[in-house]
Amino acid sequence: MLDSFDQKKAQILAEIATTNEANPDLSPKGTIDELCLPIMNSINSHRDMITTSSCSGRVSVFLEGDKKGSSKIGAKGVGGHWLFVTHDKKQVPHWWKNIDFENHVENSNFKPSRFVLFKFEPLILHVKCRDLTTSQKLYQTAMSCGFRESGIGVNNIVGIRISIKLDIPIGYLNEEGKCVLLVNENYLEFIDNQAINRFNENEFKLNLLHRKISDIMFAGQELTTEETKNERRDRKRREGLAKKEALMKEREKKLGMVKDAEAEHS
Amino acid sequence: MLDSFDQKKAQILAEIATTNEANPDLSPKGTIDELCLPIMNSINSHRDMITTSSCSGRVSVFLEGDKKGSSKIGAKGVGGHWLFVTHDKKQVPHWWKNIDFENHVENSNFKPSRFVLFKFEPLILHVKCRDLTTSQKLYQTAMSCGFRESGIGVNNIVGIRISIKLDIPIGYLNEEGKCVLLVNENYLEFIDNQAINRFNENEFKLNLLHRKISDIMFAGQELTTEETKNERRDRKRREGLAKKEALMKEREKKLGMVKDAEAEHS
Repeated sequence: MLDSFDQKKAQILAEIATTNEANPDLSPKGTIDELCLPIMNSINSHRDMITTSSCSGRVSVFLEGDKKGSSKIGAKGVGGHWLFVTHDKKQVPHWWKNIDFENHVENSNFKPSRFVLFKFEPLILHVKCRDLTTSQKLYQTAMSCGFRESGIGVNNIVGIRISIKLDIPIGYLNEEGKCVLLVNENYLEFIDNQAINRFNENEFKLNLLHRKISDIMFAGQELTTEETKNERRDRKRREGLAKKEALMKEREKKLGMVKDAEAEHS
Repeated sequence: MLDSFDQKKAQILAEIATTNEANPDLSPKGTIDELCLPIMNSINSHRDMITTSSCSGRVSVFLEGDKKGSSKIGAKGVGGHWLFVTHDKKQVPHWWKNIDFENHVENSNFKPSRFVLFKFEPLILHVKCRDLTTSQKLYQTAMSCGFRESGIGVNNIVGIRISIKLDIPIGYLNEEGKCVLLVNENYLEFIDNQAINRFNENEFKLNLLHRKISDIMFAGQELTTEETKNERRDRKRREGLAKKEALMKEREKKLGMVKDAEAEHS
């Protein structure tokens, strides 16, 4: 029998294995970001860890929704949607060329309530660990690479977060329902470059984290386990069977269009 | 004998009690933000929690330092410093009037490397708990109020964080060492208002968190403890003595200008 962590891990691995553009997961993008794959593969090859969500970093331009008088900043609100999203720094320059922005006209009577935000959001990873010891070790590894907003949640899930964001209001929705820019194209080019710098820094940090996880989390993994060769062979066989079974269930579920919110990558 | 948590708590309470403008702590501001005092007092009246750092939320305008070719975004760098900081929303409007900014002139040869960032940073609290159970309960309480970037670190310290930031590059340092604005005054007024909205939302969230902590963390606190009346009286006496002792040590230390980085508020 696999314990509950191993069952969960097999299920998530099966979901990851069957996720592609034709069979998207529940994230906005629907597939796993390419930049995340190497670090995810490393983490998931560790017997005591499994990624439960990931985003490699992205630029997004978001029109806030109608919040009906509530003060919830950051909440999506009714009608809130992305005007632009990319996980690829090469797509950033001149993203605004394809968007129909109006020019700002001073109107003292109009108080906009829905704003357009240009954001850079760095790497975020959630990793479920088998036990508290593993989650604390992973937390400390992430902190040592500068992921200073990391923390452990419930069920030994580690949130790996870093604070190299951009969060820039660049416009608003006018009375005619059109998006209006408050900054000029020079400024948009400037923040494009700032976002690309952050993409580069983010990639550097991602690679550093990957190396540190490989060095620290795997050090002595085989030495500290009390498994004999036979036990290991049996475990691997059980894990393989569980993964196969979970894979089949996953395929059936996807064919039946039954959605499950467990794993969410992007 | 007090256990190590109680000793630590007494020491931090003594530091808090002696911190004022004449005896600042190690934070940039040196004193505890007024808005944080009620929630801190509540938390610190709980026998299993003690705040180790706090910031009620602030607007800052920061000139990045020289990073000597390193790509460390967000790092302070040599010569990095604040042009403006406030924890009081009433101080935000027209903050730039007292700063000597230059106007931007297009110069294709000059690639600035030090930028001026306008930031809103929301409430952040670190709370050390006596045990994992308490830290998990506090973590879940914070998450339930929308502090979605919270997490537990080592030694049962809970970081309580929320993502209602602003992080806006507004200028750069030119070759003559002057700060140059890339946006106009209309835009500065606009982001002042955005920051004030966030201050309001932040205060709303702070009060919500305070209420929830009072409701959830204190519920049944007396009922679940196995202390008798006498044990409680003895503990209170020991805590009082330890606080008095720590207070005296703290005064001596401050008089001797010996700094200690344990508690840092603001």
